[in-house]
Amino acid sequence: MNVREILIKLQLGEIDVDNAVKLLSKTSVADLSHTRLDFDRTQRTGFGEVVFAKGKTTQQLIDIFSEFERRGENVLATRVSEESAKALSEKFTNLLYCEIAKTIILNSRKQAEQTGLVAIVSAGTSDMSVAEETRITAEFFGSRTKCFYDCGVAGLHRLIANIEEIRKANVVVAIAGMEGALASVLAGLVKVPVIAVPTSVGYGANFEGLSALLSMINSCANGVSVVNIDNGYGAGYISSIINKQVK
Amino acid sequence: MNVREILIKLQLGEIDVDNAVKLLSKTSVADLSHTRLDFDRTQRTGFGEVVFAKGKTTQQLIDIFSEFERRGENVLATRVSEESAKALSEKFTNLLYCEIAKTIILNSRKQAEQTGLVAIVSAGTSDMSVAEETRITAEFFGSRTKCFYDCGVAGLHRLIANIEEIRKANVVVAIAGMEGALASVLAGLVKVPVIAVPTSVGYGANFEGLSALLSMINSCANGVSVVNIDNGYGAGYISSIINKQVK
Amino acid sequence: MNVREILIKLQLGEIDVDNAVKLLSKTSVADLSHTRLDFDRTQRTGFGEVVFAKGKTTQQLIDIFSEFERRGENVLATRVSEESAKALSEKFTNLLYCEIAKTIILNSRKQAEQTGLVAIVSAGTSDMSVAEETRITAEFFGSRTKCFYDCGVAGLHRLIANIEEIRKANVVVAIAGMEGALASVLAGLVKVPVIAVPTSVGYGANFEGLSALLSMINSCANGVSVVNIDNGYGAGYISSIINKQVK
Amino acid sequence: MNVREILIKLQLGEIDVDNAVKLLSKTSVADLSHTRLDFDRTQRTGFGEVVFAKGKTTQQLIDIFSEFERRGENVLATRVSEESAKALSEKFTNLLYCEIAKTIILNSRKQAEQTGLVAIVSAGTSDMSVAEETRITAEFFGSRTKCFYDCGVAGLHRLIANIEEIRKANVVVAIAGMEGALASVLAGLVKVPVIAVPTSVGYGANFEGLSALLSMINSCANGVSVVNIDNGYGAGYISSIINKQVK
Amino acid sequence: MNVREILIKLQLGEIDVDNAVKLLSKTSVADLSHTRLDFDRTQRTGFGEVVFAKGKTTQQLIDIFSEFERRGENVLATRVSEESAKALSEKFTNLLYCEIAKTIILNSRKQAEQTGLVAIVSAGTSDMSVAEETRITAEFFGSRTKCFYDCGVAGLHRLIANIEEIRKANVVVAIAGMEGALASVLAGLVKVPVIAVPTSVGYGANFEGLSALLSMINSCANGVSVVNIDNGYGAGYISSIINKQVK
Amino acid sequence: MNVREILIKLQLGEIDVDNAVKLLSKTSVADLSHTRLDFDRTQRTGFGEVVFAKGKTTQQLIDIFSEFERRGENVLATRVSEESAKALSEKFTNLLYCEIAKTIILNSRKQAEQTGLVAIVSAGTSDMSVAEETRITAEFFGSRTKCFYDCGVAGLHRLIANIEEIRKANVVVAIAGMEGALASVLAGLVKVPVIAVPTSVGYGANFEGLSALLSMINSCANGVSVVNIDNGYGAGYISSIINKQVK
Amino acid sequence: MNVREILIKLQLGEIDVDNAVKLLSKTSVADLSHTRLDFDRTQRTGFGEVVFAKGKTTQQLIDIFSEFERRGENVLATRVSEESAKALSEKFTNLLYCEIAKTIILNSRKQAEQTGLVAIVSAGTSDMSVAEETRITAEFFGSRTKCFYDCGVAGLHRLIANIEEIRKANVVVAIAGMEGALASVLAGLVKVPVIAVPTSVGYGANFEGLSALLSMINSCANGVSVVNIDNGYGAGYISSIINKQVK
Amino acid sequence: MNVREILIKLQLGEIDVDNAVKLLSKTSVADLSHTRLDFDRTQRTGFGEVVFAKGKTTQQLIDIFSEFERRGENVLATRVSEESAKALSEKFTNLLYCEIAKTIILNSRKQAEQTGLVAIVSAGTSDMSVAEETRITAEFFGSRTKCFYDCGVAGLHRLIANIEEIRKANVVVAIAGMEGALASVLAGLVKVPVIAVPTSVGYGANFEGLSALLSMINSCANGVSVVNIDNGYGAGYISSIINKQVK
Repeated sequence: MNVREILIKLQLGEIDVDNAVKLLSKTSVADLSHTRLDFDRTQRTGFGEVVFAKGKTTQQLIDIFSEFERRGENVLATRVSEESAKALSEKFTNLLYCEIAKTIILNSRKQAEQTGLVAIVSAGTSDMSVAEETRITAEFFGSRTKCFYDCGVAGLHRLIANIEEIRKANVVVAIAGMEGALASVLAGLVKVPVIAVPTSVGYGANFEGLSALLSMINSCANGVSVVNIDNGYGAGYISSIINKQVK
Repeated sequence: MNVREILIKLQLGEIDVDNAVKLLSKTSVADLSHTRLDFDRTQRTGFGEVVFAKGKTTQQLIDIFSEFERRGENVLATRVSEESAKALSEKFTNLLYCEIAKTIILNSRKQAEQTGLVAIVSAGTSDMSVAEETRITAEFFGSRTKCFYDCGVAGLHRLIANIEEIRKANVVVAIAGMEGALASVLAGLVKVPVIAVPTSVGYGANFEGLSALLSMINSCANGVSVVNIDNGYGAGYISSIINKQVK
Repeated sequence: MNVREILIKLQLGEIDVDNAVKLLSKTSVADLSHTRLDFDRTQRTGFGEVVFAKGKTTQQLIDIFSEFERRGENVLATRVSEESAKALSEKFTNLLYCEIAKTIILNSRKQAEQTGLVAIVSAGTSDMSVAEETRITAEFFGSRTKCFYDCGVAGLHRLIANIEEIRKANVVVAIAGMEGALASVLAGLVKVPVIAVPTSVGYGANFEGLSALLSMINSCANGVSVVNIDNGYGAGYISSIINKQVK
Repeated sequence: MNVREILIKLQLGEIDVDNAVKLLSKTSVADLSHTRLDFDRTQRTGFGEVVFAKGKTTQQLIDIFSEFERRGENVLATRVSEESAKALSEKFTNLLYCEIAKTIILNSRKQAEQTGLVAIVSAGTSDMSVAEETRITAEFFGSRTKCFYDCGVAGLHRLIANIEEIRKANVVVAIAGMEGALASVLAGLVKVPVIAVPTSVGYGANFEGLSALLSMINSCANGVSVVNIDNGYGAGYISSIINKQVK
Repeated sequence: MNVREILIKLQLGEIDVDNAVKLLSKTSVADLSHTRLDFDRTQRTGFGEVVFAKGKTTQQLIDIFSEFERRGENVLATRVSEESAKALSEKFTNLLYCEIAKTIILNSRKQAEQTGLVAIVSAGTSDMSVAEETRITAEFFGSRTKCFYDCGVAGLHRLIANIEEIRKANVVVAIAGMEGALASVLAGLVKVPVIAVPTSVGYGANFEGLSALLSMINSCANGVSVVNIDNGYGAGYISSIINKQVK
Repeated sequence: MNVREILIKLQLGEIDVDNAVKLLSKTSVADLSHTRLDFDRTQRTGFGEVVFAKGKTTQQLIDIFSEFERRGENVLATRVSEESAKALSEKFTNLLYCEIAKTIILNSRKQAEQTGLVAIVSAGTSDMSVAEETRITAEFFGSRTKCFYDCGVAGLHRLIANIEEIRKANVVVAIAGMEGALASVLAGLVKVPVIAVPTSVGYGANFEGLSALLSMINSCANGVSVVNIDNGYGAGYISSIINKQVK
Repeated sequence: MNVREILIKLQLGEIDVDNAVKLLSKTSVADLSHTRLDFDRTQRTGFGEVVFAKGKTTQQLIDIFSEFERRGENVLATRVSEESAKALSEKFTNLLYCEIAKTIILNSRKQAEQTGLVAIVSAGTSDMSVAEETRITAEFFGSRTKCFYDCGVAGLHRLIANIEEIRKANVVVAIAGMEGALASVLAGLVKVPVIAVPTSVGYGANFEGLSALLSMINSCANGVSVVNIDNGYGAGYISSIINKQVK
Repeated sequence: MNVREILIKLQLGEIDVDNAVKLLSKTSVADLSHTRLDFDRTQRTGFGEVVFAKGKTTQQLIDIFSEFERRGENVLATRVSEESAKALSEKFTNLLYCEIAKTIILNSRKQAEQTGLVAIVSAGTSDMSVAEETRITAEFFGSRTKCFYDCGVAGLHRLIANIEEIRKANVVVAIAGMEGALASVLAGLVKVPVIAVPTSVGYGANFEGLSALLSMINSCANGVSVVNIDNGYGAGYISSIINKQVK
């Protein structure tokens, strides 16, 4: 952010005077040639920034991570390619790379404490990559999580065996491909908000996740809302801000 | 059918010589100007013919029913308009009209005995019209039925309360609109074939039943196959021939 | 609900023993021939039940409302036709009918106190019907609401003029048709969850709300999740349970 | 499955006490870290389990097969990559790998006897991969099969030449891509249920199988129901349980 | 057409000098305020003009017909509303109105002789409206026709009984809704071009004719090409020019 | 607009201080209960405001028009129902109602002079309603227009006969339904920007204008951009601001 | 073909007794294990068979070509991979391979004389692969062809410069991707049937040829019918049989 | 172009006599075997020709560039593959290759002076490739440009910080993927035409840019028109001709 942007944020009420002062003191460094980093989010929330790595070169990611490290901020990158992950791992020390979720976290300082509870329920093992992205995101933003994988509705006993545990959460994330029925069944069994994530798992007439998306958007159950296909990050983020508001 | 058609049916092996003889003896009357009636199906199966009333005029329906009555055969008409139903009711005595299913049965002779069991499970009260079409069709073709309406997955207890009864059937028909999750949940709980009927019940992104259709076609559960949106007749027919094959 | 269903609910952990006792004492009356009413939700939550009126006859609605009145419970009906609304108004006294939202509330007893805050922001005057359904639902379930109508992104000053007020809410509902950009812009300006409702307002290539749905599901902003097209009820429900969780 | 899941299955009536006892005696081993195997299906049916290999690593498949071998159970894996197939073949001895269908069967014990008859009719040689998956699945679940490949409707004589043989089956599977007309033509010529499998064979406006799917779902013939595009496994499974029900 | 347009047609080679002379001699009258009539087509071909009546007012149709009558030309109007048909019938004497096809022909002079043969084959009685539009168009443009209605593939004997007759045509029009399989089956049985017309007959997943359109466009048989859904006129026109070219 | 909104507009640079002063002096009247009118656009541009009448009641339209008349401003309403048009005509004197375009203009003061040139070319007479909306809008915003109707590509001579006239415009609007080829052909013949308007004219696989929209968006010609299906207003507006920029 | 199939073809009237005799004399060899070759088409028409190579292995193609060579028949293979083409070229001598069209012709005997005229008009150079497949197919089936490539409507002069030549053909094939306007423009300029081939050339909202397909199916011009996207073979075949019918 | 085409262009009024003379003097060289180059556009406009490189071989591009160089004309190639770019760079000296935009410009003579102003605003860094294609195209055709990248609506302050600068342009290009809201927000803030470019940036339900396309086509703001998904070239071209018309 440059000076002009900071002042407009102040004008829009997105930051207060104290944050503006802090940001102004750092303007000379925040602007990489290829990316404008929004450090004030980190300032405000204490959680750190998120980088969507897909479409960024390895060098760009190294630049971004270096800047965050220099400032002592944490950063979460999603959809990181194997190649970029390897290069970053060689360069930085406080890295947490998750191969399944394709995420990397740079911990320049201690992560925020995790409180509350987000329950993450997925239908099949193929949904695990999306589910892990959700888990890592929610935890990065300070939520405690508990995962219940491989609980698809075709074997209802697996879901019912875990339902008491799931009910302890402040918000439930339901992750499923194919017909996405998990969201409706779950929402009928819990009283908290259900964030549904359709996945592209399946083949044929699932049309890359369309079947699950339509299924979830048309849920006959109360209390369901939906994010994009395979958008584990989005579900982790919104479920976390819902969770953090409780108590 | 005319003589030529009967002989070709014989050649194709669709009828045997006895039926061909019977049919030939009736060729002079079977050909209404607007419709070719296939009486030999009635002959073979003992169940009677089915007429898709949508797009036929009331007069055409009266002609058809008269012909069946004259021959002493039963006939089932689906998608009958209220207006046609009224006119037919005034003209014929042995009529069974179902306002919800929009079906009419003309019983020129005793209906076939109903055997076996087809379980018909529907998600909501709005699916009742399709479910009743299924029930009436299955019964017309000689299957005993049992209905479980308003058993949507958002209130799982309603389904589980009836599951022991449903398991007694030789085939289960699952009828649901919106996200159509019922088919998957049911197929996970029974061991017999599940015939799924997506309905156009819902609004918005259900796109006139597309969401339920895609959901059911992509079912994660084993043993599900699907008929057209709102096709209660089709589900009744195929479930009945599956049921009748048992024992 | 019948006895069997109540016991299964107990087994599933959906109700506790006390509620089961209460429910069992009322089983003789709760089962109308056409609809199974779920009074235990009312018991548990203190808010009352919701009836989706579309596809139900006026007589069925009268039966349902009578049953609720007899038990001294409140009920909210959505998508009520003008004709049904008139008939119900003549029959019941404690009715609140909203012509714009097409909702009716029967207040058999005092409504729950409204707490917290749900901000309801809509893009144009044509979205008002959906927005009002959201407002009435959220209030029925005990949430305080504040509405900001006609705040579409084509006149950004209208949104910015109200942003301080909107930021006071625990959850924001963004309602828009056409290109549905409101959800993304709002989510960039607030820190709480945004529930997005695409509406069918528009013409041509909006394909009955598909454009707004896709737009919202693909939002580039953090913290957005989406309900069905025109589903004001769904947004009111989930935003209310999010709001009520905030202490 | 863990102890809790087994007890819930008992409660849901999915298994009886004897099976529960057997399952409990094996709980210590059934839970691989990545997959929960459902051995009780094997127990109940005598046929063995099925594994959807797509999306599983070779190592995971080896773990699963080892577990089945250890228990002396059979297992069928579908959509196995060439690489996984090779690795499994080197490790296990009683393997049957079908390169066309991309299936592997591990015969830890004698396969069930094949009874009844499922007729598998495909339109072109390009549909053979789906057709073989159907055949292998149906046989794995104890059905006798007979295949009629390359019988597309553009050369009707090929179909009619085989129709007498096809009519001997208890259920017919119709497999076709492009315009999928085979299902309708077949259903007009047989009296048993027809399970239709649209395939993705074709190009241009077949949209990866959509044309065949819509064609089959809209069949003008009686007695057709449909599974997902290229879902040979699903057709094999449901046709087998229909076939096995016939005494 | 005005003078300028006529000269450009001459320049483009669409008319020759003789026609240009004739047309120029009539320019003062051909231009109704609302419609530009192309009389030179009539001149050239001897068949007359066609008017797409949908979207034109009754008065506009009367103006157009009057102009044709004044000049002694024939005209065919398609998609004529009942109301317009009635008004035209009262006003003109040499009218042929077909209620099923919704066409009107004004015979100001003798129709051209009909030669060759176009076979028109339709699947069901509901397709008759489209089929009749095809027949009337083809005859208007000078082709002899023969119709084979109610020959859907679900009862193959009906098609085979007529196949020898159909083979006598120079071109075959295949008209079907639902799954549109008729086009493929027919094309496999004849050696001449097949013009396929998908119809909107059906419901649910036929999506107003999309299923039949995709089916026909993806035909596995040789020699099929396709016109728009319900476009009986288009099929009649192109089949007629193909037919007229023979011999 | 209220005071807050005016000040934010000033802050956003949308108005200058003089306009802000004028607007503030009128805030007490501009806010009808149902609609917020944006008089400052009128102030700035000298053209007047536009009202999208669809979805507004006749009474709301009367209120809006009264407010404009009171202030001496012009207003254009589009998509006005026949009923509303009649009521408005009885109430106001300086009204221009166009039945074809479904527009009404209230001229409280003299319309702006029309300068430059916008050429409006449409394919068929059925596109006239959209074309007239374009013409009226462009003229309302101060552009001179010239219309070329019924110039579809199937009769290329009609287009070429007018091409010299069309080339005199600063911008060309191409309006067509069905296959929408007009836009590409026109863009190949002129050097100025072509604004393409797909219309919903057609049937069957035009899917309410989708075919024309896709056709125009994929134009192989340079210099084409596209507005929504049937959006004559949008084309009139953007073509007018392009035209007005040309000195 | 086996004996049974030949007799049924006789019964269906597809072949006469002489052909049946010939075919029966060859039954021992015609049935490769993987493919049933239909030599009687070759017998009847004198043109030879066509093989769709996509999805067939190189070895299968070699087997098929060997069989044709042994019998002294010609064969055309379409969609031949580069690899297969190379292998075939090494094995057979009388091969004509077209790299652009991806076709191979094996001339075991002299090709039929080419008569009549098919005009093949394509919009851009990227459509050349489809256009060449059309040309080669039409010629293989005995039609003379003339090609007019790179004649898209964006440069109308290229089309008009060739229109006199194009008008000499008995049938015109119009090949275009993107917005596919070429078909409509051509059909407005010629009097013979136009076979339209949409191609997948383009990007973005052309959706792999959907835009061109919809455009052509909705053509406002008379005398257009359409084949599948990129189906150069289909267009070559049907245009050839139309052309060959013209005396 | 050959002689015939030049004369027809003269006839169509696309060129005047002087240009015709010039063109005729060069006809012997303009016709490469694979491509017809339209040098007269270069002659008329002074800007040079554009080549769509996708689908052209490297050798074809070399031929084309050589021809332009020989004539001393400039040429812009878009969608150039890395491989072709490398080969061209080795062969020609006055080349400008942009790796991000995948464009190459051959400057055989001085580029036209850049005048006016086109503002190019993009939502995210992933849209940069499209944005750069727009910039380079607009500049090639003589427009001055200014770019504002990474200004998505989720961070409104970035857009507002630049809005004064953006308002100085004669036309604004808005480039965005995902939900494409940028176009609507921008159009609400400026008074000049907005050309919207949807991009395929995103995943899941963006369906390769469909969400952004529908969003932009349905914009609630005035003054927006849309080009194809990822069509940076198209936006650059039309925005440039709009810009060049001013003053």
